[in-house]
Amino acid sequence: MNPKDFEKAKAGALELLGKARIRLTPLERETMEVTDLGLGDIRHVGLQVVVYENNDRYCAKELVLLPRQICPEHKHPWISAANPGKQETFRCRWGEVYLYVAGDPSLKPRARVPAGHKPYLNVRHEVVLRPGDQYTIPPGGLHWFQAGDKGAVISEFSSTSADERDVFTDPRARREG
Amino acid sequence: MNPKDFEKAKAGALELLGKARIRLTPLERETMEVTDLGLGDIRHVGLQVVVYENNDRYCAKELVLLPRQICPEHKHPWISAANPGKQETFRCRWGEVYLYVAGDPSLKPRARVPAGHKPYLNVRHEVVLRPGDQYTIPPGGLHWFQAGDKGAVISEFSSTSADERDVFTDPRARREG
Repeated sequence: MNPKDFEKAKAGALELLGKARIRLTPLERETMEVTDLGLGDIRHVGLQVVVYENNDRYCAKELVLLPRQICPEHKHPWISAANPGKQETFRCRWGEVYLYVAGDPSLKPRARVPAGHKPYLNVRHEVVLRPGDQYTIPPGGLHWFQAGDKGAVISEFSSTSADERDVFTDPRARREG
Repeated sequence: MNPKDFEKAKAGALELLGKARIRLTPLERETMEVTDLGLGDIRHVGLQVVVYENNDRYCAKELVLLPRQICPEHKHPWISAANPGKQETFRCRWGEVYLYVAGDPSLKPRARVPAGHKPYLNVRHEVVLRPGDQYTIPPGGLHWFQAGDKGAVISEFSSTSADERDVFTDPRARREG
């Protein structure tokens, strides 16, 4: 990612966290993850993440999506007998989120997807999350999501996170651990 | 608890969540836990809790403390080989929290404890949490905490919660599951 795009995405995410009145430490602001998943188009496809805690039992993060930014379709695979894959609960704190999971396809989805990204989306059952709404994604379940026009802040509560194990539908996408 | 004290504590907690800009669903507002731990003095000793998610892998809650309210000293005991006791991370979202854990006693603690409650406190190492600060309490570790003069809102991220198993230093205290 070029440094200008990185800085712009980070500044946008910090602004949204401010609107949500979520306070970070200076270190958290400094080390926030900004990723385009290796796809080179962070304005449309990417994610900003602040990890609060990730230990061998549970994990908590804030996920920030810029206006209309998409977190691409992926699943959290089986890891071991004790860990059948990451389970996660998304709780919308600010803005609006269009989350897609397995189930009957929604006929009039709210997401707007760039043509080049459409081949990499399979699940089409829409769940709309507004502040205070939450949804839990089971281990191994494919999902993707897009913020509405103003962006979104999502608190993620989950089992242990191993982002580098995420399996993306787009074979070019990758997440660093 | 008499209904008037209950309603007052609940209204106070909802007001603090509003100040923290934390949005709840109508059902969450309705079913918020308000507990005096059976001690009959909720203005000084008690807790308000909204459980977002509690499954067999992780748990997330908001804890609300009224001004100077104390959550009494307790620990989360060993449950099974797979669960050596609840581990929890407190993240202060609003207000100020004085958390006490094992370690060197703090010489000038910020907490103000009613005389009748003092016999039930053992750990005296102070950790001050302000918005954005967090602290992780290990399984089995004694802890208690008090809000500052304005009250506090704390996000709790943890392993599975089994509140009814909590072990309180004050033998009269109890938590319903």
